[in-house]
Amino acid sequence: MKLGDLSTPALVVDGPTLDANLATMAAARPGTQCRPHVKAHKTTALAHRQAAAGHPGFTAATPREVLGLAAAGLGTDLLLANETVDPHRLAALAECGARVTVAVDSDATVDAAAVAGIREVLVDVDVGLPRCGCDPSDAGRLADRARAAGITVRGVMGYEGQVTLFEERAPRAEAVDQAMALLAVAYDAVGGDVISAGATVSYDLNTFATEIQAGSYALMDTAFAPMAPAFTPAVWVEATVISVSSRWSVADCGLKSLGMDHGPPTIEDARVLVVSDEHVTFQPATPVRVGDRVRVWPAHVDPTVAYHERMEVIVGEDVVESWPVDLRGW
Amino acid sequence: MKLGDLSTPALVVDGPTLDANLATMAAARPGTQCRPHVKAHKTTALAHRQAAAGHPGFTAATPREVLGLAAAGLGTDLLLANETVDPHRLAALAECGARVTVAVDSDATVDAAAVAGIREVLVDVDVGLPRCGCDPSDAGRLADRARAAGITVRGVMGYEGQVTLFEERAPRAEAVDQAMALLAVAYDAVGGDVISAGATVSYDLNTFATEIQAGSYALMDTAFAPMAPAFTPAVWVEATVISVSSRWSVADCGLKSLGMDHGPPTIEDARVLVVSDEHVTFQPATPVRVGDRVRVWPAHVDPTVAYHERMEVIVGEDVVESWPVDLRGW
Repeated sequence: MKLGDLSTPALVVDGPTLDANLATMAAARPGTQCRPHVKAHKTTALAHRQAAAGHPGFTAATPREVLGLAAAGLGTDLLLANETVDPHRLAALAECGARVTVAVDSDATVDAAAVAGIREVLVDVDVGLPRCGCDPSDAGRLADRARAAGITVRGVMGYEGQVTLFEERAPRAEAVDQAMALLAVAYDAVGGDVISAGATVSYDLNTFATEIQAGSYALMDTAFAPMAPAFTPAVWVEATVISVSSRWSVADCGLKSLGMDHGPPTIEDARVLVVSDEHVTFQPATPVRVGDRVRVWPAHVDPTVAYHERMEVIVGEDVVESWPVDLRGW
Repeated sequence: MKLGDLSTPALVVDGPTLDANLATMAAARPGTQCRPHVKAHKTTALAHRQAAAGHPGFTAATPREVLGLAAAGLGTDLLLANETVDPHRLAALAECGARVTVAVDSDATVDAAAVAGIREVLVDVDVGLPRCGCDPSDAGRLADRARAAGITVRGVMGYEGQVTLFEERAPRAEAVDQAMALLAVAYDAVGGDVISAGATVSYDLNTFATEIQAGSYALMDTAFAPMAPAFTPAVWVEATVISVSSRWSVADCGLKSLGMDHGPPTIEDARVLVVSDEHVTFQPATPVRVGDRVRVWPAHVDPTVAYHERMEVIVGEDVVESWPVDLRGW
C-alpha cells in the first residue's frame, strides 16, 4: 500500500526518521541508561524496536500500558511511574508475570502496593513539578514503611517536567540540577540502585539519574523538538483537503486527531487558522485543491497518538507496517 | 456495580440528567425538527435513546459514524454533514443499506459522490464559520451539477458555529439571523425540503432551519452550558485522588481523558492548576485524601468522549448501563 492509498485522517510515522531517533538515544543513553516511556506512543510494536535498540526496561503511565507490555513479551523490567491505589489493577500488575516496579509517594500507596502483592517499588519524589511525589524529607520514612511490609525498594524517582519551561539549554540545565539536588536528598535516605528521572528534554543534561524516562524522542513533536534537536519529528496526521475557498482551505483532521494542549498543529508553508472537531482550516502559501494531501504536525505527540487506533509506518511512499496503538486506555 | 467500584478514569453519565436533556430537546424540537449530531457522543446506545425520544434522523461528522448508526439499526435518515472525496468510504456509505445523505460544497465533492453511487446530497453553504461550505451564490450551480449527475438534492445545510462567540443571547440571536440570511440566498437557488443548520447553542433561536443539528445538548459541557441553560451537564470523568501534599492534590485523569481545546476542566470546590497526560493537579477547598473520588467536568464534550472506550451510565450510585463508545475513528 502507498501513503496516498491510506484513508484519512491517518497517523503516519516516517520509519527511517523513527529509526534514526531510536539510534541516537541508544548511542547517548545505551541499555539501562534509558528506560523508554511508552506513554508517548502507546504501541508495543514500537516498544519492540526500542528493545531491539538495546533498552531492556520500559516506563509506563498506566496499568494497562504495563500489562500490554508484559503480554507483548516486553516484561523484563517494567516501571509504572505513577501512583495507583486501585486494588484490582495493582493485583493484575503483581500477577502479570513480568518484573513490575511501581511508584509510591504516600502511606496509602505503599500500603495498597503491599496488600496487592507488589514486590518492588520506587519512592516517587517531588522535585519541583506540581504533580505527584513525596517531599524529599519524607522519602526515607516511606522506604522504611515499604521495606517493613516486605517490599523491595529499588531506589527513587523524580520527574523534572518543569524544565520544559526553559527552551534555552543553559537555564534548562540549571533547572535539571536544582531538581536533581532534591532527588539526591531523597536518595541519600532511601538507597537502592535505581535513580529514575528525566525526559527527552533532559536526556543529555541529567547526569545524576541512572536511567532516563524519555518518551517523546521516538516520535517527537513540534513543541519539544527545539529542546532536543538531536531528534526529528517522525509523526504527523496525514489529512485530505476537502474544501477550498478563496479565503481558506480545509482538511479532514481536527480536535479528535490531535492533542491541543500544547497549541495548534503546524502545516508546512501554511497558516493554521482554526481547528474544530474534524477539521483544520488553513491558509496555504500555494493554493491546494480538493483531494490534495497535507501533513499536519502535532504540537504534543502523547495526546495525539492516544486518539488513534493505528499508526502507519512508511518508507518513502510505501506503507511498510501498520501498528495497532494497543496500549490505549487505563 | 456501584459508581465507587469503577476503575478510574471513567467517563460517567448521569442517566436521569441525560434523559431530562433528551426530553427537553424532544419537546422543543420534536421529531424531524432535531437531527441529533452523534459526533458529540459517538455512542449508538445513546443514539437509540434519542431515537426513542422521537428523532428519526441523525447527523454525523465521519463516515464511520454513519456506518455505525446504520449497523445499529438507526439508518432511517442519516446525514454526513461533512465533505469527503474518499471513494472507498463514499461507496461504503452508498452500499450500507441506510438512507444516507452527504454534504457537498464543490465540483469535486459532487463528482465523487456521483461516482460512488451516493443518491442524496445537501449543498453545504458557508454561512460565516471559517470551515467548509460553498459561497451562497454558488449553491444553485452545484445543485444543478448534482441533479445532472442523477443525484437528488434534498436542500441546503449551513452550520452557524461562529455564534458560540456570543455568550449573551441577544447578539447570538442576531448572529444566527445573519447566518440564516446567507443560507436563505442559497436555499432560494437550490430548493428542496431540507434546511439543516444549527447547534445546541441555537436550537431555540434558529427559526429558519427545518432541522437542527444539535449534538452537545445530550451530555453538555461546561463551555456551552451557559449558552443553553435548559440543558444540564450530564457527563464527567470520575477520577481517584492518587497523591496529596500540603500544596496540592492530584487525581488520575489528564490530557488523555479530556478534550482541552475549550480550556481546562472544572472540579467542584477546587482550583485546577495543571493538567498533564494522566494527571490533574488541583487545590480543593476542603482537603481530600488518597483514594477519594472527584468529578472532573470537561470543557468540551466531543473530544473528551472520543478518548474513551465506554461511558458508564449511573442512576444514583448504581451503574445501570455500560455503553461502548462505538462510533470512534473515521
